[in-house]
Amino acid sequence: MAINTSMEQLGKVRSAIRDLFEYGNARAEIIGRENVFDYSLGNPSVAPPEQVKETLLRLVTEEDPVSLHGYTSAQGDKTVRLKVAEDLNQRYGLKISPDCLYMTCGAAASLTITLKALSCPGDEFVVIAPFFPEYRVFIEMTGMKCVVVPADLEHFQINMEAFKKSINEHTKGIILNSPNNPSGAVLSDEILKETMDFLREKEKEYGHQIFVITDEPYRELVYDDRPVPFMTKLYRDTIVCYSFSKSLSLPGERIGYILVSEEMENFGNVYAAVCGAGRALGFVCAPSMLQKTIADNLGITSDLTTYRVNRDLLYDALTSYGYDCVYPDGAFYLFVKALEEDAKAFAERAKKYELLLVPSDSFGCTGYVRLAYCVSTDMVKRSLAAFKALAEEYLKS
Amino acid sequence: MAINTSMEQLGKVRSAIRDLFEYGNARAEIIGRENVFDYSLGNPSVAPPEQVKETLLRLVTEEDPVSLHGYTSAQGDKTVRLKVAEDLNQRYGLKISPDCLYMTCGAAASLTITLKALSCPGDEFVVIAPFFPEYRVFIEMTGMKCVVVPADLEHFQINMEAFKKSINEHTKGIILNSPNNPSGAVLSDEILKETMDFLREKEKEYGHQIFVITDEPYRELVYDDRPVPFMTKLYRDTIVCYSFSKSLSLPGERIGYILVSEEMENFGNVYAAVCGAGRALGFVCAPSMLQKTIADNLGITSDLTTYRVNRDLLYDALTSYGYDCVYPDGAFYLFVKALEEDAKAFAERAKKYELLLVPSDSFGCTGYVRLAYCVSTDMVKRSLAAFKALAEEYLKS
Repeated sequence: MAINTSMEQLGKVRSAIRDLFEYGNARAEIIGRENVFDYSLGNPSVAPPEQVKETLLRLVTEEDPVSLHGYTSAQGDKTVRLKVAEDLNQRYGLKISPDCLYMTCGAAASLTITLKALSCPGDEFVVIAPFFPEYRVFIEMTGMKCVVVPADLEHFQINMEAFKKSINEHTKGIILNSPNNPSGAVLSDEILKETMDFLREKEKEYGHQIFVITDEPYRELVYDDRPVPFMTKLYRDTIVCYSFSKSLSLPGERIGYILVSEEMENFGNVYAAVCGAGRALGFVCAPSMLQKTIADNLGITSDLTTYRVNRDLLYDALTSYGYDCVYPDGAFYLFVKALEEDAKAFAERAKKYELLLVPSDSFGCTGYVRLAYCVSTDMVKRSLAAFKALAEEYLKS
Repeated sequence: MAINTSMEQLGKVRSAIRDLFEYGNARAEIIGRENVFDYSLGNPSVAPPEQVKETLLRLVTEEDPVSLHGYTSAQGDKTVRLKVAEDLNQRYGLKISPDCLYMTCGAAASLTITLKALSCPGDEFVVIAPFFPEYRVFIEMTGMKCVVVPADLEHFQINMEAFKKSINEHTKGIILNSPNNPSGAVLSDEILKETMDFLREKEKEYGHQIFVITDEPYRELVYDDRPVPFMTKLYRDTIVCYSFSKSLSLPGERIGYILVSEEMENFGNVYAAVCGAGRALGFVCAPSMLQKTIADNLGITSDLTTYRVNRDLLYDALTSYGYDCVYPDGAFYLFVKALEEDAKAFAERAKKYELLLVPSDSFGCTGYVRLAYCVSTDMVKRSLAAFKALAEEYLKS
């Protein structure tokens, strides 16, 4: 009698990203932290807004501790959900009620709960390459099939021809992630309209819903004032999965929400299934003090200046050295074409220059590397010579 | 194409406990909070130790916020795990390493992760009545069969005859919960020894492991200095699921751990499966600031005096009124025999006296009600006349 071997495998295979991160720590011990240019992890380097600290101090000092640290209702504290709804209504011109929100332990929880709530045997869920590798883990955990749409390597939008072929009568839904990890691309209004129109058509043809899950931890991390449309306004059968990890620099605190569009016909059933899935997966309630913390810090973000400066520095320098980079409108990732076909070999060669870059293979797309530039600007500056030398090595050969 | 109907059902059927709690809130609005005797929820009424508050203030004021609120490794911050291991080694004479610990978002997460890690198709998991109703939900979520051993109604230990019959070659493991919710009983050394001896015998007979999951949120809530043995010392194939919810009065903060006994033959594989299951279910890491908070508050508890006083008040008064009560050695529950066969009808009649008691049916055992006495002593005192009147109503008829 074995234990669950797929879980065992999942626990043993460390992700490529984590592996690189550990390698960087080992190198730092040998040659000094300042000489390692670690672009592996998407762990924000900018502190949370000062206001978050003030809220935490106020809550701990002034609130009744029994209530502050007590259970909230499973779907989240009512006042917190009211404030989140009001903030979204005001910022995006929505008219949602607190009762379409379900507070979660972060984006991963938002996704696993939503997928579990929707999943039936035989269902398929579509992801658009390049995509966050855990999507496949989360989809397959529910017993659904993960269908990958190959990347649009020209604009890093959606490869529409391949996308349309991926949808069939078994499609339960798709995951959209804009701004995108790992490409930094933001989906255009035109692409979104075409995608939603197509899905609506297919919903009619098959006579059942096709859900759009929009994974939005980077919603507020958009440069050049490029607006990201609120998806519930474009498509009825939308479920928004949000996290405060990146916008407020609280990744370890595990706080986010699920928003089930009240426009959908079977809203009550879908919301109930979300509550049921949260219960079955062992999420009793989202961390209570953090629920109350984010409720007083809605609509603000950490100072994104550092990320913008890093983006401009890297994009300008790397393109001048001859690299082909996707121009990132949002998030804090730069997606760079490898200087040889095999991105793993390229990333391996980059290590000679102490550059830690994640090969794109695990994102469902070959031939690129991802740089997480949520690092200090100082490190970015110090790393530029290494990128230049790496490019020159390829030019010489 | 439907959504996941079992999740939908789970979300729609509110637990009997939550229903009663909502009823209590509605009554309080009509007749005043002080006139409702709400014994429904196991939500601690005693504040966390003052030291917890001090730790939180220190962390928020003095620590680097990027690191304080950043991701920890998936299995938990290394220093935190080291401190938890040292505390357990010192208090229980163990020799565990930090690498057998996996920090979780509370007891429910500890259980769902562990069950998912172990589960294979066709497996059965045994629970001992009376038991926390979510055990069934968690076991069935993994696809395993939940096998219930009927209660030992004499001593609320383990009905050994029924227990022995429940074990077969499909048994993957059993869940033990001592001190017990809902009975407050603590398993005796003799019963534990007999149970473990029997399981060891069956492991040999079937040629495979039978895991013991010990769900221990009430470990430190034991009165009269009755020691609870650390189960890894009694049985090799033990996995401990712990939570700081009750001991430190932090139920909403979702912080606990899984301890996989390093004594088990396939420790590495089981620990890897726990890591894999945590990842698949969407638990990225346990809330980071809370990990660091509990690390500085190990081995201490909230002031349990209130619970002990409440227990004595209730047990003495109710037995003097003619109720038959299980003597609670631990936790903060009193399990009282209903004064008629149908516990639901009895609990319904108790409402006439504004007494909110949970019928035992959902705990896998008929004919009892559960009182959660983690309430103010003042409420306990005010409620005694109601218990007396309720008993008298039954004596009259």
